[in-house]
Amino acid sequence: MRIDLNSDLGEGFGRWELGDDEALLSIVTSANVACGFHAGDPTVLRGVCGQAVRRGVAVGAQVGYRDLAGFGRRFIDVPAGELTNDVIYQIGALDAFARIAGDRVRYVKPHGALYNAIVHHEEQARAVVEAVRLYDPGLSVLGLPGSRWLELAEQAGLRTVREAFADRAYTPEGTLVPRRQPGAVLHDPDEIAERCLRIVHGEPVTAVDGTPVRVRADSLCVHGDTPGAVRVAEQVARRLADAGVRIAAFALERD
Amino acid sequence: MRIDLNSDLGEGFGRWELGDDEALLSIVTSANVACGFHAGDPTVLRGVCGQAVRRGVAVGAQVGYRDLAGFGRRFIDVPAGELTNDVIYQIGALDAFARIAGDRVRYVKPHGALYNAIVHHEEQARAVVEAVRLYDPGLSVLGLPGSRWLELAEQAGLRTVREAFADRAYTPEGTLVPRRQPGAVLHDPDEIAERCLRIVHGEPVTAVDGTPVRVRADSLCVHGDTPGAVRVAEQVARRLADAGVRIAAFALERD
Amino acid sequence: MRIDLNSDLGEGFGRWELGDDEALLSIVTSANVACGFHAGDPTVLRGVCGQAVRRGVAVGAQVGYRDLAGFGRRFIDVPAGELTNDVIYQIGALDAFARIAGDRVRYVKPHGALYNAIVHHEEQARAVVEAVRLYDPGLSVLGLPGSRWLELAEQAGLRTVREAFADRAYTPEGTLVPRRQPGAVLHDPDEIAERCLRIVHGEPVTAVDGTPVRVRADSLCVHGDTPGAVRVAEQVARRLADAGVRIAAFALERD
Amino acid sequence: MRIDLNSDLGEGFGRWELGDDEALLSIVTSANVACGFHAGDPTVLRGVCGQAVRRGVAVGAQVGYRDLAGFGRRFIDVPAGELTNDVIYQIGALDAFARIAGDRVRYVKPHGALYNAIVHHEEQARAVVEAVRLYDPGLSVLGLPGSRWLELAEQAGLRTVREAFADRAYTPEGTLVPRRQPGAVLHDPDEIAERCLRIVHGEPVTAVDGTPVRVRADSLCVHGDTPGAVRVAEQVARRLADAGVRIAAFALERD
Repeated sequence: MRIDLNSDLGEGFGRWELGDDEALLSIVTSANVACGFHAGDPTVLRGVCGQAVRRGVAVGAQVGYRDLAGFGRRFIDVPAGELTNDVIYQIGALDAFARIAGDRVRYVKPHGALYNAIVHHEEQARAVVEAVRLYDPGLSVLGLPGSRWLELAEQAGLRTVREAFADRAYTPEGTLVPRRQPGAVLHDPDEIAERCLRIVHGEPVTAVDGTPVRVRADSLCVHGDTPGAVRVAEQVARRLADAGVRIAAFALERD
Repeated sequence: MRIDLNSDLGEGFGRWELGDDEALLSIVTSANVACGFHAGDPTVLRGVCGQAVRRGVAVGAQVGYRDLAGFGRRFIDVPAGELTNDVIYQIGALDAFARIAGDRVRYVKPHGALYNAIVHHEEQARAVVEAVRLYDPGLSVLGLPGSRWLELAEQAGLRTVREAFADRAYTPEGTLVPRRQPGAVLHDPDEIAERCLRIVHGEPVTAVDGTPVRVRADSLCVHGDTPGAVRVAEQVARRLADAGVRIAAFALERD
Repeated sequence: MRIDLNSDLGEGFGRWELGDDEALLSIVTSANVACGFHAGDPTVLRGVCGQAVRRGVAVGAQVGYRDLAGFGRRFIDVPAGELTNDVIYQIGALDAFARIAGDRVRYVKPHGALYNAIVHHEEQARAVVEAVRLYDPGLSVLGLPGSRWLELAEQAGLRTVREAFADRAYTPEGTLVPRRQPGAVLHDPDEIAERCLRIVHGEPVTAVDGTPVRVRADSLCVHGDTPGAVRVAEQVARRLADAGVRIAAFALERD
Repeated sequence: MRIDLNSDLGEGFGRWELGDDEALLSIVTSANVACGFHAGDPTVLRGVCGQAVRRGVAVGAQVGYRDLAGFGRRFIDVPAGELTNDVIYQIGALDAFARIAGDRVRYVKPHGALYNAIVHHEEQARAVVEAVRLYDPGLSVLGLPGSRWLELAEQAGLRTVREAFADRAYTPEGTLVPRRQPGAVLHDPDEIAERCLRIVHGEPVTAVDGTPVRVRADSLCVHGDTPGAVRVAEQVARRLADAGVRIAAFALERD
C-alpha cells in the first residue's frame, strides 16, 4: 500500500508570507507550487523548488487565474485560448526554477476557483488539458475523481492522479461539501488521520449525512496555512507510516 | 559580410496593441519578445513565437523590470537576488512558447531602463548575467559594446553580441545620445540606411558633434512602433541586401 | 428634445494608447473615464478629467473588475462586499482628478463584463449600487433600461439614466444582440445616425429580426476606439444637431 | 507635553495579512494607511478606516510607489509628473473610505523607498508636495526633520509634522542608521520607551557612536508587524502616559 501526500506551497508574494513551506516540505511528497499569477513571486518559487528537489519532493505547477487580489479564488470567465496560454506561461516559468534546482515540473494541479471550475466547465477544462499537452504530454495531472478535468486529461493521453482531501467533508456522491456549509472542514487530527487510513485502504468514509461513501485517491491533499494545519499534516503522515503505508510521490515513482 | 537585424516585438498587452509585429517579422532576423513583466501577455507571446519560428526568425527574451505601468522604462532598484529570479522567470515563461513553436529562446536582450542600467550598474549587470548562466549557458546575450553587461557576460562564458542602433545618434565616445537631447533620434530613412551600411562595413559614422566615430556591431536594432519606423526598417533591410550584405540571425548561424 | 452623448475615454495605460480621447471630447457631453482597474493610469485620468472639465463635458466613473489583462471584459465572480469596495476605491480615485480639474465625478457607468453582469446578477448589481450610495447618493447611474442595476439603483434613491447604443443591433425584446452574432454591430454612419434620431423622437427602430422595437434612452453611447468610430460619432452628433435636438449632459443639466 | 504616535496599517493584500491592525489601533493616535499601490486592497482600506474613525485615530495616506511585488521598498525612478498623479490617485482612493467612515484623510506619509528618496531627491520630493497641495492644501505631511520633503512642503504652505522612530538608532547627525548596519534596530522595550520619553522632553538621546544627539519630533513612529513590535508599542504608550505625556493625534488637535 502506498499513497502520495500533496500540499500547496510557495504561496507568499513579496513581503507577504503564507503557510510554513519548510515544515510542509518535511512531510509531503508532492509540492504544488504557486506560479505567480495568483500567488508566488520568482524568489519564492526559486526557494521552494530548491528545497523540494533537495528533499526529493516532486514539484508540481499550482496554476491559477491571473488574480493576485483574489488569490485565484474567484472564477474568471477567461476565454479558452487565453486560459491555455496563461497556463503554459505559468508552467514554463516554474519549470525554469525546477530545472535550475536539478529536476523539472512533474505534474499540474490547478488552484482555487480554476480547480473548482474545471470539475464541470467543459471549455476551461479542455483549455487546461491543452496547455499541459502542448507543454509536455509527459506531465501528470492531479484532480478530483470524476471531474471533467481528469476525464479530458485521460482522453488526451495524460497520466491522471486522483486526489482526496484529508480535512474536508464529503457528500454521499463523493464530492466535497462546499466550504461555507457547516461541517465542511474537519479539525480533529485523529479523525482526519483515521479517514486517510480508510481511504488508503479502500474502505468507505462517513459522508456528511452519515452514510458511507467510497473515496478513491492516489494522493491526499493536506494543508499548511495555519500552525494547526501543519500539526494535522504531521499526524496524518505519522499514522499512515505507522500503519505500514508507504508515502511516496506518484510523479517520481517510475524514475 | 553579414549582419543581424533585431527588433522589439510582442509588446502589446491584453486589449492594447503596440507596433506592427507582423510587418517586422518579415524584415528582421532576431525578435526580442517581451516576456510579460513590462509588456507582453501569454497570448501575445504565443502568437509572436509561432510566427517567428515559422519565418526562421530567432526568438530572444526581452526581459525587463516588473513594471507594466512604466513599460519597463523606469529604473527600479531591485536587489540582485530578486532581479536574477525575475529574469529567470521571464526567460522560462517565454521559452515555453518558443518550444511549443518548435524552437527555443536563443538569446537575451534586456529592455528599457534595465538595458540602460546594466551598462554601468555592476550588481544588476551581474544579476542578469547570473540568470542567463543559470537558465542556460548556451544562450547568447545582446547589448551595448563596452557595457558592463557584455563584459561580465563574456567573463561568465556567455556568447556576447554587440548591437548598434540604426536610428539613434552617437556621441564621439560611441555611446547613445540620450533621447531627450535634440537630434537623438534620426528619422530620414536614407541617412539611417547609409549609417547602417557604414557600420556593417566597419567604417566610422558621424557622431552628434560632427566627428567620426567607429561603431562595431554584430546586430542592428530597428524599431517598429510607428508606421514610419516600419518603413525605415524596410529601407535598411533593402539597402543592406542591395549592397550584398547577408542578413542572418546571429543566434541561428551555427545550427 | 434633448439627448446626452456618452463615450468611453481614458482607456490607455502607461505606454499603451487606446481611442482618440481628444476627438471624442469635442463630440460627447458625458465622458465615462476608466478608473485604473481595467484601464486608465493616473496620468491618463488627470489628462482626460482636465480636458473634459475645460470643455464642459461631464465626468463619469467607468468602474470595472480589477483585470488589466482582460480589459474588464471577463466576468469575475467577486464577492459582493469586495466588489462594493473595489467600486468605491475607483470612484474616489477618479474623483480626486475631477475635483482638481474643478468639477467632480457626476455619474457612474460600469464597464464591460461588469456592465453585462449586473443586467441580471442580483448580488453584483446590489454591490455596485451600494458603492455609489455610500460614496455619494447624489451621483447618477447610467445603464441598460430594464436592467437589475437600474431597478436597484432607483429603489436606492439614485437618479437613473437609460442609455441606448448607437451602433448596436437590438433584439425584439429591446436588449442588445450579443457581439459574436452576425449583424450585432452597425457600421453605416447614415443608418446609425438615423436610428439615433428615431430613438430621440421616441419612434421604434428595426430590431435584428425586422420587427419594430421601441428603445427608450436619455443618453446615447458612441464609440471612439477606431478612426471609423470617431467619424460615426461626429455624424451622429451632426445629424442630431441638424434636427434641432439639443445635445447636453444629463448630469450637468440642473446646475 | 504631548506627542502623537503613528504606525503603518492596512498593509495586507487580498489573502495576505500583515501586522496586527486591531492591536495597533488601540495604541496609536495616527494610522498611516496603505493605499493599494504597494499594499492595501480596497477591503482592507475600508476596514481600517472604519475602525480608526470609530476609535478617534486620525487617518493618514501611506502613499508609495506602484510596486506590490517589492512592497514599495525599492526606489523607482518615476518621472515627477507621473509621481504626482500616482500620489493624487492614492490619496483620493483612501479618502473615499475615510469619508464613508465619517472623517477624511488628515495627512500624508510616504512609505518605504519613497520616504527615503524624498529626503534628498529634489524632483520626487517636489512631486509629492505638489500632489498634496493639489488634492487638499489643508492636509498635513509627516516626515523626517531636515528632509527636502518637509522643507518643500513648508515652502508650499503645508503643515509639516516631524517624526522620530522609537525603535531605530540615530547617527550623531540625527539621521537614521541604515537598517543593514549592526545596531540599527532597537529591541529592548525599556530602552525604546526611555528614548521616547527623552525625545518628548526635548532631551538628547544617545547616538550609535555614543555621543548625545537631539531629535525633535511631533510624532513617534511605532511598528506593529511582529508580536514583539506590538508589545513595544504598548510599552511606549504606557510609559509616556505614566509620565504625564498626553498622547494625541496632531492632525485632530485643532478640531
